[in-house]
Parts: sequence; C-alpha cells; structure tokens
Amino acid sequence: MTRFTVSQIADALGATVHGDGDLPITGAAEPADAGPDDLALAMDPKYVDGLATGAARVALLWGGADWQGLGLQAAITVERARYAMSGLTALMDPGPRIPAGVHAQAVVDESAVIGEGAAIGPFVVIGRGVRIGARARIDSHVSIAEGTEIGDDALLHAGVRIGRNARIGDRLIAQSGAVIGADGFSFVTPERSRAEAARETMGDASEAKAQSWTRIHSLGSVSLGHDIEVGCNSCIDAGTIRPTRIGDGTKIDNQVHVAHNCEVGRDCLFAGQVGIAGSVRIGDNVVLGGQVGVVDNIFIGDGVVAGGGTVILSNAPAGRVLLGYPAVKMDTHVETYKALRRLPRLAATVAQLQKAVSKPGPTD
Amino acid sequence: MTRFTVSQIADALGATVHGDGDLPITGAAEPADAGPDDLALAMDPKYVDGLATGAARVALLWGGADWQGLGLQAAITVERARYAMSGLTALMDPGPRIPAGVHAQAVVDESAVIGEGAAIGPFVVIGRGVRIGARARIDSHVSIAEGTEIGDDALLHAGVRIGRNARIGDRLIAQSGAVIGADGFSFVTPERSRAEAARETMGDASEAKAQSWTRIHSLGSVSLGHDIEVGCNSCIDAGTIRPTRIGDGTKIDNQVHVAHNCEVGRDCLFAGQVGIAGSVRIGDNVVLGGQVGVVDNIFIGDGVVAGGGTVILSNAPAGRVLLGYPAVKMDTHVETYKALRRLPRLAATVAQLQKAVSKPGPTD
Amino acid sequence: MTRFTVSQIADALGATVHGDGDLPITGAAEPADAGPDDLALAMDPKYVDGLATGAARVALLWGGADWQGLGLQAAITVERARYAMSGLTALMDPGPRIPAGVHAQAVVDESAVIGEGAAIGPFVVIGRGVRIGARARIDSHVSIAEGTEIGDDALLHAGVRIGRNARIGDRLIAQSGAVIGADGFSFVTPERSRAEAARETMGDASEAKAQSWTRIHSLGSVSLGHDIEVGCNSCIDAGTIRPTRIGDGTKIDNQVHVAHNCEVGRDCLFAGQVGIAGSVRIGDNVVLGGQVGVVDNIFIGDGVVAGGGTVILSNAPAGRVLLGYPAVKMDTHVETYKALRRLPRLAATVAQLQKAVSKPGPTD
Repeated sequence: MTRFTVSQIADALGATVHGDGDLPITGAAEPADAGPDDLALAMDPKYVDGLATGAARVALLWGGADWQGLGLQAAITVERARYAMSGLTALMDPGPRIPAGVHAQAVVDESAVIGEGAAIGPFVVIGRGVRIGARARIDSHVSIAEGTEIGDDALLHAGVRIGRNARIGDRLIAQSGAVIGADGFSFVTPERSRAEAARETMGDASEAKAQSWTRIHSLGSVSLGHDIEVGCNSCIDAGTIRPTRIGDGTKIDNQVHVAHNCEVGRDCLFAGQVGIAGSVRIGDNVVLGGQVGVVDNIFIGDGVVAGGGTVILSNAPAGRVLLGYPAVKMDTHVETYKALRRLPRLAATVAQLQKAVSKPGPTD
Repeated sequence: MTRFTVSQIADALGATVHGDGDLPITGAAEPADAGPDDLALAMDPKYVDGLATGAARVALLWGGADWQGLGLQAAITVERARYAMSGLTALMDPGPRIPAGVHAQAVVDESAVIGEGAAIGPFVVIGRGVRIGARARIDSHVSIAEGTEIGDDALLHAGVRIGRNARIGDRLIAQSGAVIGADGFSFVTPERSRAEAARETMGDASEAKAQSWTRIHSLGSVSLGHDIEVGCNSCIDAGTIRPTRIGDGTKIDNQVHVAHNCEVGRDCLFAGQVGIAGSVRIGDNVVLGGQVGVVDNIFIGDGVVAGGGTVILSNAPAGRVLLGYPAVKMDTHVETYKALRRLPRLAATVAQLQKAVSKPGPTD
Repeated sequence: MTRFTVSQIADALGATVHGDGDLPITGAAEPADAGPDDLALAMDPKYVDGLATGAARVALLWGGADWQGLGLQAAITVERARYAMSGLTALMDPGPRIPAGVHAQAVVDESAVIGEGAAIGPFVVIGRGVRIGARARIDSHVSIAEGTEIGDDALLHAGVRIGRNARIGDRLIAQSGAVIGADGFSFVTPERSRAEAARETMGDASEAKAQSWTRIHSLGSVSLGHDIEVGCNSCIDAGTIRPTRIGDGTKIDNQVHVAHNCEVGRDCLFAGQVGIAGSVRIGDNVVLGGQVGVVDNIFIGDGVVAGGGTVILSNAPAGRVLLGYPAVKMDTHVETYKALRRLPRLAATVAQLQKAVSKPGPTD
C-alpha cells in the first residue's frame, strides 16, 4: 500500500497544509467512511457532517475552512476542489500491476522495437515492424498490428486492439476493449442506392432499385496525437485513403464510435456512447455529452458544447451550445420545449377562438 | 445431447403432465419445426396450426388445452407461458463446455485463491490476491485484475475483463466483452470549463476559455451484489473514491454503459445500449428500455419504467412511467405527440383566424 | 509493398486508361499528398487543384476529364467514382498479416475440422466439433465455441467471439470485438411485471408488484448467410429456440446490437450504434442510419430507410423513408419540425387573437 505524509500530499497538489504535516495517509475516503489514516474528502461545507461519524484525523477542505473547529489534527485546503481531485487520485493510483519486461507468453515479432522500461503482459501479440516508445505498460491480451508506431508512456489495458500502420503520440491511455484503426464501414452499390436517393430527395427513394453492397477497403489507418484517452469498447476506425485524425489531449469515454476519415481537434471531450459518422470535421475544445450523434460529412466548430442525447444533423458554428434532436441552440430548445408542453392547451384555445369567431356576430 | 422424459420436464417446471410421461425429449422447437423427440412450444392457441405440419408427439400447451384433440401423445400444460420458458430453457442449456480444472495455458497468480470445482479455460489471466468462489466457469481469454473477489457459481464468458479490487457476489453471469471496473471518465480543467459554463447558464459558454483536460483517477472499483448479469461489451466503470454499486438481481443487456460512482438498486433491468452517466442513483425494480440515456448526478426512484430511446434529464419520482426526449410521463408524451402531429394544421387554422379577425368588420 | 501498373489497375476497375499505362503505382493518395508513384484520387473537378501541389503523375479522374491539360502522364477515368473506390481499395489492401497454418499457441480442439489454406493466429481457441471452410484467416485472440460451422473465406479479426452452434455462410468478415451468438437478454417475472403493465396500459404500472427476474436461456444460436460483415464490438445474440437470422449480403457497422430472435433480410445496411430489440423482423435492402433504435416485436418492410437517430416504435411498411423519435415519414418530420420551430411565435399570435376577440366589439 502506498503511504504518504500530509505534507507530501499538499506539496503534490500545490496546496496549503495546516496542522501536523507529518501524519501518515494511506488512502482517501468520503468523510463518513474515513479511517484514522485516510484523507477525508470534504471540499464543500455540505460534507462536513460526515467528519463526525468517520474517524478521519486529516481532511481535504475548501479554502478558509475552520479545520480546528472540525476537530481535525491536520488539513489541506484547496481552491478548486475538482482539480485537486486529479492530483490526489493520480498520486494514490498505483496503476495496473504488469511485471517489468516481456511476459514469456507474449508473442512479439522479432522486427518490433520496444522502448526501454516496458512492461508487457501475457498473451500480448505485437506485429511486424511495430515501434513502441519507452515505459509502455501493455496489459494482457492486447494486440498491435503490423507497422504501427506508438509514443512513450503508453498504457494499454487488457484486450485493447490496435490496427495496422497507426501513428500514435505519447501517453496514450486505452481502456479494455478499445479498437483503434479497424476497417471503416464504407459500402457502395453499382448504381445509386435507396439511401442516396432518400437523402437527395429528402424522403423519396422510390426509383432506386435493390442492390448488393460492395466494400470500400480502409487503407488510411489512424493518426492520434499526444495525451489521448480512449474508453472501453470504443472504436476509432481507419480512414479510407488518409488517416482518421484525433488531436492532442482529446479524451474519449466508453462505447464511443468515431468513424472513418473523421478529423477531430485538440482537447475535445466525448462522453459515453457518442457516435460520429464518417468524414466529420470537429474543431478544438468540443464537448459532446453522452449518446450524442453526429451525421456524416458535417463540420463542428471550435468550442461547441452539445448536451446529452443531442443529434447533430447539420454544421455547427464555433461556440454554439446545442441540445435536442435535431440539434438546435440550447436556449431555443428550452423555449421550443416549453411551448411544446403547452401545445395541447394551445390547441384547445384555438378551437374556442374558432367557435367565437365563427358564431353569428352581435350585429347580424 | 441432453435427454429427458416428459415427466422430468413437467416436474422441473412444476407443471401438469398429460398422457405418456415416459416419452423421451431431446430438445425444444417451434411446432412446425419439431421432430418426434422435440417438445413443441405451443403455449398459445395461435401456434397450434404448426403442430400439424411438424412431427411433434409432445407439446407444451396453455392450461386447459385439448391436447388429445391436437393429436398428441402427451402434453405439459402451464399457466404463465413465458415463465415456463425460463425453467425449460435452463433445463436444456448444457452451458459452455469448459473442461474442469485450470487449463495449462492459463496464467493464474500463485497468490490467487480459486474455489472448488472451477473450470478455467485457456489464455485466462488471474491477478495477484484474487479470490474466486466455488464452481466458477471462466471461459477463454478472461482477465481478472489484482485484489478482486468473486462469489460462488460465477459464469464468465470468453473475453470478459474485470478490473482491480472489485467485490462481486454469487452467480455473476458476464457475457463476452463485458468490462467491469475499468477507469471512470472523469476530467477537469484548471479553471471553469466551457461545459460547466454552458450547463450553469443553460447555454452561454462564451466566457470560458479553451483549456486542456486533467485526469481524475478511479480508486473506488465496483461493488456488485448477487445474481447480476452483465451483457456483451457492456461497461460498469469504477468509482472515484467509493465503489460504483449494483444491487442484487439487476440484469444488464449488451452495450450498456454504467459510469463511475453510480448506485443502482436491486432487480433492475437495463436493455441494450442504455447509457447512465456518472453519479446517478437508481432505485429498485427500475426498467430502462433500449438506448435510454440518463444524465449525470440525478435520481431515478423505485419502479420507474422508461420506454426505448427515452433521455432522462432530471430526477424521476418512484413509480413514474417515462417516454421521450426529454423524458416526460408516458401519457403526457402521447398527448403532446398527438398535438404535435396536428401542429401544421393548427398553424393553418390560426392563420385563417387571423385573417378573419383582422378583416374589416361588418359595421365598418 | 504492393506494386501495380496503371493498366493493371484500370483493368481491375473495368475502367479506361489514358496515356502511359506502364507507369508504376504503389499506393493511392489524395491529390495534394500524392507522391510520384501514387495514384491521385481526383474523381471530381473540385479535387483538381490538389494535383498542382502534389507530385502525382497519374490520377483517377471522372469520365471526360482533360487529363493532359492537368499535366498528368497517365489517367484512369471512371463513371461512378465511389464504386471505383471499392475496386481500387480492394486491390491495394494486403489484408491482415496472419502466417499460413495454425499458430503453435492456438488451442484447436482435435475434433474441429479446418479447411485448406487457413491462417490461424496466436491465442485462438476453437472448440469441439467446429467446422471452418477453406482459406479462413483468423487473427489472434479469436474464440469459436463448440458446434459452430463457418463457410469459406472467413476473415475474423483479433478478439472476435463466436458462440456455440452458429451456422455462418461464406466470406464472413467480423471486426475486432464482435460477439456473434451470445446469450439473448430475456428475463421473466413469476407474475406480470411493471414493464408489462406499463406497456399494456400505456403508462400505468401501479398495480404490478416488485419481483425478481428469472432468466430464459438461449438455445437457438444464430444463422448468418453469405457475405455478411459485422463491425467492431457489435453483438448478434442467439435466439431462444430458433436461430436469430441475418440474410446474405447484410453489412453491420460498429457497436450495433441485434437482439435474440430477430430475422433480418438480405443486403441491409446498419450504421454504427444501431440497436434492434428482440424478435424484430426486417426485410431486404433496409438501411438504418447511425444510432437508430427499433423496439421489439415489430416489422420493418423491404427497402425502408431510416435517418440517423430515428427511433422506430411501430411497424414500418415497405419503402418508407423515416426520421425522428418516434419515427415518422421523413417529409412529415421535416414539416412538423418546421412548425415546431415556429411554435413560440404561433403561441404569441394566438394570445393576440384571444385579446382581439375578447375585447369589446366596435358596435358595443
């Protein structure tokens, strides 16, 4: 078990320590669950009550908190609580236990080049010509196909799949079941298909005949920047000719689908089950809530934020905050939605008006 | 192949046998497909016609059915047909064929404790300090990380991933590709982010500046009760400090996402592709239809039922039946939706009224 | 690296070659990125500008293009550009590098029958009685359970899972993480459940009591035709008694869920994250856009096209083009949606009318 002093933790957070900085800390806990060697997390006054029921001697508190009045022997105070959580949890996370070196039951092609300090687990498969940077941690059952290059400090959890010829920067984190660089979903019919006809006419596919689908293969692989995270069972498909691109610092949650030929900017955040169709261009700092869908071949500008479940069917200019299906500006959606809830009443009012207007007037 | 007599099956179902209870049964089939040793499934009069085209000698019928008039040699009659299917299919399911013992090509840490009667397939990886109860069936390619404890009678299909320090009850069934206890998706910016700003102002994120995301690590793992099923490629993420919790008897379909810090009650049912964002509390006996989404940090009361595609954006009181995006009471949704379909006509009526009211009056 | 002449490529596409057909081609590229041995892809006049910045000597152009005026040494011209891409990319795709034969670290049951010319990678598990046709390419970490039969020319990417007793035609392509033939999600309560009550009454579940769920096992496996593709982390569940069926030529994208007992026709196309609930019947040539949902036990006719995010809650007749939640005809949705955006203004108009009508008339 990891073991720190209060002062060590405060230093790591760049935070202020109060009281006995030498007290030992072996874990973090909610105030009511905290034992005597836990750091109780009470960064908001509403969590203070729990301190009395728990056994914490030290707490992480908001700036200006009266730690002595709370009966503590020490405290660390922070200004932005959520941000402090990042430093604290990083400090306390030992990471997955993958022994250093290459496991005897891994299959690594002799042409592959693995950087210094790697830890590669059992049943890993690394293909021809693969290059992996320093200090990689690759857990069991991962496969990395031929020609792929990955930067330093990669962390690949069990069962990650990386396709051929990918180019990936430093500090990639990929969760279990993520598939990076598989074939895109791209099919074509010999003649115009029903789907093409329906789209062009906004609804009339009657003249298109039934046909079978022919596959367009994906030769373009993927290109991922630095500091990218890809969640469990998420997929980033290979491009057709040029790579599907994800910019530095973009974070992708579980079960997200980024289709072939997409170009995603820097520092985006895609929540669980987001689906992005083919050839979409997305700017920097875009935040897509859970289950957001984006149709193919459109453009999402820098800084767009879309609430959970939004379905984006057309280009979104930079800075737009979206909600709804189809997506509209969030305030428009809220206003429209209020009107919609009053709609049955509105219909009744109109019916009354109609009666009032059509009845014989007073001068008849 | 499994082989039963009619009476053995009736006994297992607690059902009534009619006619020759000694006839052999080797499988179950729809009436038209049934061979002479199949039990034909005809629990509703509408399936009776198939009996004539098939070759069944025995059928599972509704209570009071005239089995002799249907030309059968025996019959089993039941009152609640769907419930009988559970007993019948359980009886006839041989389960996956995993030889007893630990496969020579599994990698089990020497500190792990495996209960009696386990069957562990090839390429399984079991980490340090893992404890698994009696009679576990663990199919190929499963990985179980350090410190995890699983109860008796677990059935883990090929390729299941279980993270570190999980606490899991008896009779867990996990389908292929399920990921239990991976890192939650939790990121923070040094200053207030655009997404935070948009949420607080309901749409205005203009003052928040572009920033990079810092990771909050997940130290809390997961805590699952007894009798839980997790579908293919579904994810239950680890909590940040305390565990993500799932109560006894809850069943989760394929491609479902339960984010970090969620607390789910007993006997819930989540259909395919449900997505539940972080820190949601869900009561007991909640049924969420396919593709339902739930935003973070809300509360869903006991017995809530949500129809397919519902997006729940705010707290739902116990017993509420929901539909729509955003979710409203199902009857409200139906009423609103009817009004919406009449809306173009309503607009035309209002335009006429406007003309009628604004035109010169008869006394002008 | 693969190497072709211009004429070889033109022949493979059934297309016309212009200029020096003997020039070597080693890859395909967008015009601006093309090197001297790349075939530049400029099948539309709008891509022509890139030819000047790139170094291509040969391009794929639209019919009638003035290739000499573009400064090229050779050209291939095609009529339907997207269709030409299928031939070109197929030609240039070397496929995954799986060495011929069965890898020493694969576990193949001695009763399994593998066709000629197979390439089976490391850590593959093939169960009892499995039969696989000729020229199968099975990448690492795949598992195929007992009793399953697969036709010729299968391509199974790393980590695919195929359940017991499946019947699968020729030329199956399954992407990483696809799960074919896992248990369906089918549960029943001893008495009528809240979900059943809510559905029958359209919203009132108040009389149903809380109960636990009992499992209905899946004995029916799956039956897949020829020329099927299944995307990454997609799931096709086994049927209860009879198989879940997918017809010839149907293509399924990533993270799609096809539940137990579904019957899907020929040449359908399901885009990413489509979810189809249990016992749905789908005709031929049906195209479902990304994130489309289909509720259980309904029927979708031949040639139906549904736009992204559509939620289909009732039967859809053949040829219908759908959009929205709930799904309606696409033109109805567009009309309704326009009216909805004008709804706040409509409400204001009605309020004015009400004032006008209720105010004292001119003759009072």
